[in-house]
Amino acid sequence: MRLITYEQEGRAVLGARVGEEVVALSTVVPGLPEEVNAALAALGLPDSAPALAARLADAPRLPLAGLRLLPVVPRPGKIICIGLNYVEHAREGNNPIPDYPAVFFRGPTSLAAHGAPLLRPRVSGKFDYEAELAIIIGRRARHLTEAEALSCVAGYSCMNEGSVRDYQRKSTQWGMGKNFDRTGGLGPEIVTPDELPQGPNALRITSRINGQTLQDSTTADMIFSVPRILAILSEVMTLEPGDVIATGTPSGVGYPRQPPVFMKAGDRVEIEIEGIGTLVNSVEDEA
Amino acid sequence: MRLITYEQEGRAVLGARVGEEVVALSTVVPGLPEEVNAALAALGLPDSAPALAARLADAPRLPLAGLRLLPVVPRPGKIICIGLNYVEHAREGNNPIPDYPAVFFRGPTSLAAHGAPLLRPRVSGKFDYEAELAIIIGRRARHLTEAEALSCVAGYSCMNEGSVRDYQRKSTQWGMGKNFDRTGGLGPEIVTPDELPQGPNALRITSRINGQTLQDSTTADMIFSVPRILAILSEVMTLEPGDVIATGTPSGVGYPRQPPVFMKAGDRVEIEIEGIGTLVNSVEDEA
Repeated sequence: MRLITYEQEGRAVLGARVGEEVVALSTVVPGLPEEVNAALAALGLPDSAPALAARLADAPRLPLAGLRLLPVVPRPGKIICIGLNYVEHAREGNNPIPDYPAVFFRGPTSLAAHGAPLLRPRVSGKFDYEAELAIIIGRRARHLTEAEALSCVAGYSCMNEGSVRDYQRKSTQWGMGKNFDRTGGLGPEIVTPDELPQGPNALRITSRINGQTLQDSTTADMIFSVPRILAILSEVMTLEPGDVIATGTPSGVGYPRQPPVFMKAGDRVEIEIEGIGTLVNSVEDEA
Repeated sequence: MRLITYEQEGRAVLGARVGEEVVALSTVVPGLPEEVNAALAALGLPDSAPALAARLADAPRLPLAGLRLLPVVPRPGKIICIGLNYVEHAREGNNPIPDYPAVFFRGPTSLAAHGAPLLRPRVSGKFDYEAELAIIIGRRARHLTEAEALSCVAGYSCMNEGSVRDYQRKSTQWGMGKNFDRTGGLGPEIVTPDELPQGPNALRITSRINGQTLQDSTTADMIFSVPRILAILSEVMTLEPGDVIATGTPSGVGYPRQPPVFMKAGDRVEIEIEGIGTLVNSVEDEA
């Protein structure tokens, strides 16, 4: 199943895409809570995905083209980001290979929907792209073993974990450079795990600006795999439905290039992950 | 005005304390949204505080003693933390005095209510206390000047920004050590700015464990004052109603002491800030 979130009368609505049409999930799940995180919790993903998908056939549909998409989770309780999770990316920034993940957070104000512009901040030209596999949590989970970890995953999406490099380096903590408004693309869809029989750690992941490929790797090259990330995080904190985990970016980001490549107004930026889809954003200067 | 948040039939309710009694704010503000962040937005603090306070006199009341308190903001959109914001605290950890704040985030799962136990994690004995002045945002704000910055502040509260030191240091980023479940006390109240005529930067701030004072400083010693923090953060991100900003801790935390002092099961930990109140938590071992 492929879930999207769209706006209707000022509210976020969770839907399932079927071809070029969308089914509001509330029409197939009676009593589904309105709020997206609560709706995700109520759906009971990932186990429920096949049964839910079967209910979509006869449900009323809207054309996808007419909908204003939102970030697939508009207001995650937590957006947890793993830094330096690909060997070649750690090396390109002259960082040691970590034996424990670097974990930082983004806030919901930093997100942007598929198709919406990313905002290059007024105060910096160093707006870098980072292609990442995003995990969307579907069930509350704590103290997961690696073997059971995927049982809490509602699905996967694409993230452009947009990073303002000079602000990221103004202190030892990366929080500011990772939290400019509308710098992080998240979408286009939440793809439930049953659609990815190869699992989350054998997927090609690429980024392109204006058609030029800048990152091209595979999630098999993660230092900490998806199950390992979930086990490590849940040793510390409860993962909740709607939480988003950005799993780190492969090599090829803009700042270490000669000359550096940064996103600028008018660019078209794509993050493509095999089996999941392509997140597309334009770039605008902050007003 | 002194606002609390309490649980009623599984929902968080925002109230105002009057002596030993509480007025549910929905009884004096018709149409107040249920959700706490939306309710804070609708209240229009800080400007509305005197008018709201005047309406409390004739409103129906509940005894405070019977209520189960929640963190004063149970589900902040962002919990933004400023590290190393007092000169002596930076020095006690052998850190340089920063010229830009170290900013990291906590998630809502890390919060604990006034009167509820803080949880010492299974996996670590290095559970440290940090007395902090917390800013609670009342109005959306971006690109604030220092002169206007306080106009977005709904009020102030006390935070024990509990930190698991070995996990904080497992990578360059502090995210894990700052995000164990129920390690961060937030409360007891949101005190509106009209109750603090001296402003937020002339307040004594102390912490005590089992009656012994361990931190004793004043918010006048902050490197980045409250208005400066708001200006710096809002250059990067939109501050939203219900967002919480923990403004850093003074010297006297546990880990650099000889011998180190850490919180342990059975301790009674108090964070007191002049004019704001005293946040009290017991400590329990995680089950």
